[in-house]
Amino acid sequence: MSEELKEALEDCGAILYGDFTLASGKKSRYYIDIKKAITDPLVLGLAADLMARQMGEGHGVQRIAGVVLGSVPLAVALSLRTGIPFVMVRKEKKDHGTGKLIEGQLSPGERVMVVEDVITSAGSAMYAVKTLRQAGAVVDMVMSVVDREEGGREVLCSEGVGMTALVTASMILGN
Amino acid sequence: MSEELKEALEDCGAILYGDFTLASGKKSRYYIDIKKAITDPLVLGLAADLMARQMGEGHGVQRIAGVVLGSVPLAVALSLRTGIPFVMVRKEKKDHGTGKLIEGQLSPGERVMVVEDVITSAGSAMYAVKTLRQAGAVVDMVMSVVDREEGGREVLCSEGVGMTALVTASMILGN
Repeated sequence: MSEELKEALEDCGAILYGDFTLASGKKSRYYIDIKKAITDPLVLGLAADLMARQMGEGHGVQRIAGVVLGSVPLAVALSLRTGIPFVMVRKEKKDHGTGKLIEGQLSPGERVMVVEDVITSAGSAMYAVKTLRQAGAVVDMVMSVVDREEGGREVLCSEGVGMTALVTASMILGN
Repeated sequence: MSEELKEALEDCGAILYGDFTLASGKKSRYYIDIKKAITDPLVLGLAADLMARQMGEGHGVQRIAGVVLGSVPLAVALSLRTGIPFVMVRKEKKDHGTGKLIEGQLSPGERVMVVEDVITSAGSAMYAVKTLRQAGAVVDMVMSVVDREEGGREVLCSEGVGMTALVTASMILGN
């Protein structure tokens, strides 16, 4: 986990403190405007550097995957940083063209790591894992910039997927 | 223009030679699978380097814009390469959330350069230019990886937008 990234998120105004009501109706003591962070090349580059460092050597990852649209910039940045090609996972079939759910090269048996901007209950990440597995990929790792610690880790774990995050809700709230 | 990039596109299988019938019904002596190129970090990184070089100094560009989905990786790569933040222009309002057409920070009066993967008749680029101008941006430059030389340059020019491309149809066909 990275205190440096947490500070970068605060500095660019992507973490706001106060009393917020989320779309789900839940109350929160912080709000994350992750698009603000992800479209800032300094923060995006830092997140990609930290993710690459966390991957380390011998990770065996052959493809990086990001769900459209929010996680595509991260997938691109980590791909450029590591030299590993990326794929983009669409949320639904586009109504024109080839209708592919996965854009980019992917062969059955390839090991894919999913990157996410924010994980709450991991709905988007689980969608990516299932879509990639249906295409024959081996997926057992998800890496997220932020883990809101709202059950996402457990959901992923129950499907045999490990999750790491650069910044967690506990860090943000100083617990 | 870049012979090096043309060769990289050929090497990764993104340019195919033969007799093709395009979606428009037109015949073509080459086919470009630009997604194959754009999801390859070596080719994407090279395209971003060349674009940054072509921008040079004193360009005054404050934001880079890419249309969802194809041009987002380029916008991200060029943003990381230059340190200029990027925005993503959606093709239509998403049916959930805030419904914004432009994702990322953009203030009226800011100078925005649009990046594209392939320009044919420049429909997608013109859509980006108009959407960004409606949001108050100043847009007078489009940079594309490939110019198929099918009238796009003229369409953009008629709206006061200059276009540069790294690789052209003439180069591909060896004219």
